[in-house]
Amino acid sequence: MEYQLHGGDIYHGKIALDFSVNVNPLGLPCGVQKTLRDSVEHWNCYPDPECGELKKRLAEHHGIEQERIVCGNGAADLIYRLVLLKRPKQALLLSPTFSEYERALAIDGCQIRYYVLRADQDYRVNVWELAEHLAEGDWLFLCNPNNPTGLAVPGEQLEFLAEICQKKQGFLVVDECFCEFLDQPEKYTLMEQIRNYPEVILLRAFTKSYAMAGLRLGYAICGDTMLAKQLCLTGQPWSVSVPAQEAGVAALRENNYLEQTRALVEKERKWMEQRLGKLGFWVFPSQVNYLLFRDEKNRYGNLKIRLREKGILIRDCSNFQGLEPVGNISGFRYYRTAVRTREENEQLIEAIRMCDRNYEMTE
Amino acid sequence: MEYQLHGGDIYHGKIALDFSVNVNPLGLPCGVQKTLRDSVEHWNCYPDPECGELKKRLAEHHGIEQERIVCGNGAADLIYRLVLLKRPKQALLLSPTFSEYERALAIDGCQIRYYVLRADQDYRVNVWELAEHLAEGDWLFLCNPNNPTGLAVPGEQLEFLAEICQKKQGFLVVDECFCEFLDQPEKYTLMEQIRNYPEVILLRAFTKSYAMAGLRLGYAICGDTMLAKQLCLTGQPWSVSVPAQEAGVAALRENNYLEQTRALVEKERKWMEQRLGKLGFWVFPSQVNYLLFRDEKNRYGNLKIRLREKGILIRDCSNFQGLEPVGNISGFRYYRTAVRTREENEQLIEAIRMCDRNYEMTE
Repeated sequence: MEYQLHGGDIYHGKIALDFSVNVNPLGLPCGVQKTLRDSVEHWNCYPDPECGELKKRLAEHHGIEQERIVCGNGAADLIYRLVLLKRPKQALLLSPTFSEYERALAIDGCQIRYYVLRADQDYRVNVWELAEHLAEGDWLFLCNPNNPTGLAVPGEQLEFLAEICQKKQGFLVVDECFCEFLDQPEKYTLMEQIRNYPEVILLRAFTKSYAMAGLRLGYAICGDTMLAKQLCLTGQPWSVSVPAQEAGVAALRENNYLEQTRALVEKERKWMEQRLGKLGFWVFPSQVNYLLFRDEKNRYGNLKIRLREKGILIRDCSNFQGLEPVGNISGFRYYRTAVRTREENEQLIEAIRMCDRNYEMTE
Repeated sequence: MEYQLHGGDIYHGKIALDFSVNVNPLGLPCGVQKTLRDSVEHWNCYPDPECGELKKRLAEHHGIEQERIVCGNGAADLIYRLVLLKRPKQALLLSPTFSEYERALAIDGCQIRYYVLRADQDYRVNVWELAEHLAEGDWLFLCNPNNPTGLAVPGEQLEFLAEICQKKQGFLVVDECFCEFLDQPEKYTLMEQIRNYPEVILLRAFTKSYAMAGLRLGYAICGDTMLAKQLCLTGQPWSVSVPAQEAGVAALRENNYLEQTRALVEKERKWMEQRLGKLGFWVFPSQVNYLLFRDEKNRYGNLKIRLREKGILIRDCSNFQGLEPVGNISGFRYYRTAVRTREENEQLIEAIRMCDRNYEMTE
């Protein structure tokens, strides 16, 4: 299935639980749901190409100028539009990381190099090492927190990278789509400093933070307001639907939703880490709502397929750069699971336990 | 306002009636509205990148193979994806026509030529003349029925063009977004013959026919199934939102909606033609749900601005290739208006009447 490069394939077969995508386990906020239901009949009108109301609210929310914001049909739309507009010639990517940067860059034959993160360093980004890999004119795509690994680079280090990119006449794209799941999001972003860096773009999305993956809504925050304008004019005028714009405005009115999310995620991530460890997996440290783990002793065979038979999806990481099983049988298998509610997490852990080759013995 | 290239600007100021966009005057079908309201809470899930269910229904609906269909975030999304994938070097466009073909082609510096339609021929497309203008390797974008003019090229003539394009090693894109408003849509399409023409793509949209402009849903039907596959893989995997996919499936279940639409549009178009004629405008013949007309004696000044002051939008056509006012004061001003319900149409006609410089006299 060539279309299915990512998680979330709930459309082939009966799926009861989806841990393969990292959307907010609290689901679409009730206030957003109500707003959507109340406005359905107006969806006959074309969307506002400028996303005026939404940008105004986002500007207030982040304390930045409206002119820096560009909304898109999910953050993925903005990645493609940015690449189409600027046509980077050479880029440096993390390995492993979210694969859409590479797919987008490949369209125009951009030369891609990788900064390989190391398992024995918990796939942590060492920004000084990374800076050494950065060549003159490089575009650096930094997923922060990184996906599928879950660790984040702090703000001061991001500033250091932004300055290196500036010096080397390159460009820095920081994908902050999972930022809101961090315990202290404001410590891991360039949001406050963005106006100092015309060569930086931050990507954010409602997709994960507000569980709006089906609605498609992301936004870019540009250091350079002229770039924001050009990006907005790249592609069709109506890429952000009316429901997405309305849902975005309603989401920003939610009061405790993100705080509740962070509390839940922190508690459940710790619980999951411990349980997966007990089941014999090596679990990598994470600061967000997903965990990367590997089956070191091949106790579970192809866990993705075996869980799928039980109606549960997790993300097989073998198509992430750097997480391919090395060799045939002896290679570690890497998986990523979302952190969800306790009830769901318990079901996952129990289902995994039943996939253990030694299950009968351990029972 | 650089973003506002088209009609539908209901987002700046108080607008009571919008005749500047050509969506179905019956509004979003009630069955579609119900489906949407009932499914809101599931929009936390990622969309199906393959749009499997929707493509299955579309294939049944049109009696074609599912493998020929590609769904997009509105037909505009598919125009951009197609151009990005195939990078046409040279293209022939109608003048005047829908401007997004030109915008999309311009991204990659495609060389564009125009086949100029003539007012004294009611902007009718003469396919034999058009064929003579077609050079070796040309991409021909044919809006059929054409926008903003409203006339359609019959199926036999489309076949002739498809064969010419094939002979000249070119490519034919037929934008059939307004096809469903024609009295006999099946007579003005290449749908049944599509499998004979690997160099042809048809574009369709729910946007106008089902009044779903805010939801963004269009689709392409490809003569070449391999091209369909490539087109589907161009750009991000999740371009079609969950609400759009669900609304599309629900719309195809509607029984009499399109028949009712056609009956209403035919009746109201005739009424509008006559009334606009009485008000002194030259009205061009149309087969669909909009009318192109011009103010020959400059009786109405800038009608768009004057109507806007009354909270009514019509489409000023001065940014369509070939409909720019020639000279300064003496040039004709062209407008396009949608055909809507009788009540709305009456309000428009009355409002226009009040813009007449001779209003006091005629009263």
